Amino acid sequence: MPASPCMLVVLPQVVALCTYPDLLDSPRFPPDAKDRARRILQSCGGQSLGSYSASQGVSCIREDVARYIERRDGGIPADPDNIYLTTGASDGIASILKILVSGEGTARTGVMIPIPQYPLYSAAISELNAVQVNYYLDEEHCWALDVSELRKALYRAKEYSNPKVLCIINPGNPTGQVQSRRCIEEVIHFAWEEGLFLLADEVYQDNVYSEDCQFHSFKKVLHEMGPEYSGTVELASFHSTSKGYMGECGYRGGYMEVLNLHPDIQAQLVKMLSVRLCPPVSGQAAMDVVVNPPKPDEESHQQFIQEKEAVLSSLAHKARLTEELFNQVPGIQCNPLQGAMYAFPRIFIPPRAVEKAEELHTAPDMFYCMRLLEETGICVVPGSGFGQRDGTYHFRMTILPPVEKLRRLLQSVKDFHVRFLDEFS
Amino acid sequence: MPASPCMLVVLPQVVALCTYPDLLDSPRFPPDAKDRARRILQSCGGQSLGSYSASQGVSCIREDVARYIERRDGGIPADPDNIYLTTGASDGIASILKILVSGEGTARTGVMIPIPQYPLYSAAISELNAVQVNYYLDEEHCWALDVSELRKALYRAKEYSNPKVLCIINPGNPTGQVQSRRCIEEVIHFAWEEGLFLLADEVYQDNVYSEDCQFHSFKKVLHEMGPEYSGTVELASFHSTSKGYMGECGYRGGYMEVLNLHPDIQAQLVKMLSVRLCPPVSGQAAMDVVVNPPKPDEESHQQFIQEKEAVLSSLAHKARLTEELFNQVPGIQCNPLQGAMYAFPRIFIPPRAVEKAEELHTAPDMFYCMRLLEETGICVVPGSGFGQRDGTYHFRMTILPPVEKLRRLLQSVKDFHVRFLDEFS
Repeated sequence: MPASPCMLVVLPQVVALCTYPDLLDSPRFPPDAKDRARRILQSCGGQSLGSYSASQGVSCIREDVARYIERRDGGIPADPDNIYLTTGASDGIASILKILVSGEGTARTGVMIPIPQYPLYSAAISELNAVQVNYYLDEEHCWALDVSELRKALYRAKEYSNPKVLCIINPGNPTGQVQSRRCIEEVIHFAWEEGLFLLADEVYQDNVYSEDCQFHSFKKVLHEMGPEYSGTVELASFHSTSKGYMGECGYRGGYMEVLNLHPDIQAQLVKMLSVRLCPPVSGQAAMDVVVNPPKPDEESHQQFIQEKEAVLSSLAHKARLTEELFNQVPGIQCNPLQGAMYAFPRIFIPPRAVEKAEELHTAPDMFYCMRLLEETGICVVPGSGFGQRDGTYHFRMTILPPVEKLRRLLQSVKDFHVRFLDEFS
Repeated sequence: MPASPCMLVVLPQVVALCTYPDLLDSPRFPPDAKDRARRILQSCGGQSLGSYSASQGVSCIREDVARYIERRDGGIPADPDNIYLTTGASDGIASILKILVSGEGTARTGVMIPIPQYPLYSAAISELNAVQVNYYLDEEHCWALDVSELRKALYRAKEYSNPKVLCIINPGNPTGQVQSRRCIEEVIHFAWEEGLFLLADEVYQDNVYSEDCQFHSFKKVLHEMGPEYSGTVELASFHSTSKGYMGECGYRGGYMEVLNLHPDIQAQLVKMLSVRLCPPVSGQAAMDVVVNPPKPDEESHQQFIQEKEAVLSSLAHKARLTEELFNQVPGIQCNPLQGAMYAFPRIFIPPRAVEKAEELHTAPDMFYCMRLLEETGICVVPGSGFGQRDGTYHFRMTILPPVEKLRRLLQSVKDFHVRFLDEFS
C-alpha cells in the first residue's frame, strides 16, 4: 500500500483549523483556509469535528461534493441527497456490495470484476459468500475492456449464479489503463441490456498521464446517452481522498454517488450506515478540500496550483520513465501507464524457475517477487494477488518514490531480472 | 446519538499538531502537547497522519494503549500485539462478531446479548444471519445481570442454535448499571464452563458516578481468577474515544484488546482488517491522548485535571438529578444511573393509551415518545428500540445537556407525563 505520495499544504491546514478552532485567529493560516474551516465547522454538530455527523455525512460537504461532480461533468446536475460520505472508498464499495448481495433468491449473487483486479473486490465477494465472476482485461490492447468478453463471462456465470453487479475500475488498478469514452458507452449499454448494477471505482480520476487519454466519468457518459439510460441504469461511483494529487489516505475520507437506486436498496443503505454512526469527520473535512480546492481569486490558489502541477507532472514523468525502462529489459513487457499509480508489467519466468516454484509449493510470480525482495530489498506484489491469465506472470509496483530513487529501483529490478533469467535458463 | 459532551483542550491540540506539523514551533501549544504529537508522528508512515498506518494501528499508539490497560488493571501485563485500533468501538465489535459467526457448522451461531441492549448488537447479528439469544437484565435489582438467567437463556438457545458468543455491556447502555466484581466473576466462570467467547463492551469505563460502584474490567477479573481461567477464556474488550470525559466521537477512534484468541481466528482477523487498509489515523491519534493524558509533571496537567473533574462531576450531578426528578413523577420509575450517559426509566402507559397505539399500528412506547416530541420538542428513544420485557415500557434519554437545560427538560417530561396520564385514564 502506498504511503502518502505528497502533501498539498491546504488540506492539512484546513483539517488542523477544523480540529482546533482556536487557530482561526492565527496569522499562520491564509484567510481562504480559515473560511473553508469555518464553513465546515458551521455544518458540524457542536461546531466540532469531535461530534458525530449525520450518518450520510456533513451536509455542506455533501453539497461541495455535488458541485465538484457538476464541474467535473460539464454541468450535469448532481444531487447532494445522492452523495454518501464514506470511510475511504473501500468502505463505500464494501457497503453497497453487501446490500446488493443480501437479496433473496435461490441462486447466489454473481459480481463481475475485472481480472486483474484490486483485491478488495475478491475479498468482499468472498466475505459475502457471493460468486466472483471474472472478466479478463485485454493485455494485448493496453488492458482494454472488451464488451464481448463481458458478455461471455456473464453468460457462463448465469449457468450457476445470478449475476447482478458489474464492477469497473477506471483508471485501472493495478493495470493503469484509462477507458475510452466509447468503451464506457458500450459497458453502459451492456449493463442496461442485462439489468446489471454498475459499480464504478473512479478513485484515480485525477491521475491520468497519457496525453491521448482523458477521464470520462460513468455518470457523465450515462447522462449523455439520454434518458432511456440515465433514468434507469443503477450506478454507484466512488472517489476518495487517498489518491489524486492530494494522496491523503490516512484520513480515510471518501464518497459515493448513487443514481437510480431502488428505494428499498436506498432504505437498507441508510439503515446500515446509521448502525456504524458516521464516517470519521476529519476524513469528511479532508474530502471537502479535495472537492473544493482553492479558487483563482483566493490567497492559497497560486501555491495550490504549483503544488498540484508539480505532483501530477512528476507522476506523469515517472509513469513514462517506468514504462520505458521496463520495456528495455528482455523478458519484461509493460503497457503504457495511462493513469493511476502503478506499473503492472508482464514478466517472463523461465520453465526451470516455474518448476522450482512448484517444488517449493509457491506460485511462480510469488517465487520471483520473494527472490527480488531477498536480493534487492525491493517489495512488489505478485500478479497472482490480483489475478492474471493462466500461464502469465506479472507484478505490481507503485510509481510513488521520488524520481531518482525510482530510477535506481528500476535499474535494480532490471539487473535482478537478467540474473534471474541467467540462473534459470 | 449524543453530540460531543465536552471538549478537553489537550486532545484537539495534539491532533491539530499531528495534522499540520508546521505548528510544532508555535508558542500557542504547551510543550507536552508537542512532545505527544512528535512521538505519534515519528511512528506514522511518512511522519504524517495522511499516510496509511499498519492495519492493526500505529505501533506507538498500541503501546500506549497497552500501558493504559496495565495502569487501569493494577499492573496486569498487556501486550501491544493483542491491541487492534479500530474505527470507533462499533467497527471492532462488528468485525469480531463477523469472524466468530462465520465458522462452519450446520446450526446457526447464537450470540447472547442483554435486553435491553445497544442496537448495534441486534443489527450486526441480523446482518450476519446469526441467532440473537436474549438474556434479560433484572430491572427490579438495578438492571443487574443474574447468571441463572444467562444459563436459562443459553439452554433454551441450544435447542435451535449453536451459541458461541456472550456479549456484556458494562457500564450498561441504555441501562446505566455498573456490574459488581462478584457478578463479573460469575459471568467469567459461566463463559469458561460453557466455552463461550466473551465480548466485553467497556466503552463507558470512565463514566462511573455512584459512590458505591467501581469499574472492574473483565480482563482484570479474568486474570485474578487464576491461570485456569486467564489462560483459556477467549475475551475481546472494547474502548473508544467517543465516551469517557473526552467524548470525541467524530474522530471514530477505538481499540480492542483480545486474549486467548485461537490462532485461526487471529489470522482471519488480520486478513479482514487489512482489506479495509487502516482505521482513520487522526482517530488513532485521538485514542492516544485518551489513553495517555497529561501526567502530573507536564504543563497541560493542571488544566487537564480541572477540565476532566469538571466534566465527570457535572455528569455525576446530572445522573443523580435525573434519577431524583424522574422518581418524583407518578408513573415513572427510574433506577440509579450508576454509570454511562443515559437514563432508561420505566414508564407506566395506561391501557387506553396502549389501545390507541394499537389502533395506530405503533408500539405504545413509540406512541408515547412521538407525543412527547410533538408536544415538547424533546426527542427520546422508545424502549422497544433496545428491547424490554413484554408489557413494560421505557425510553432512553441522555444526560449530556447542561444542568439547567436538563432540569428544564426533566420538568417538561414530568408535565407531559402527567397530562398524558390524565388524557388516557
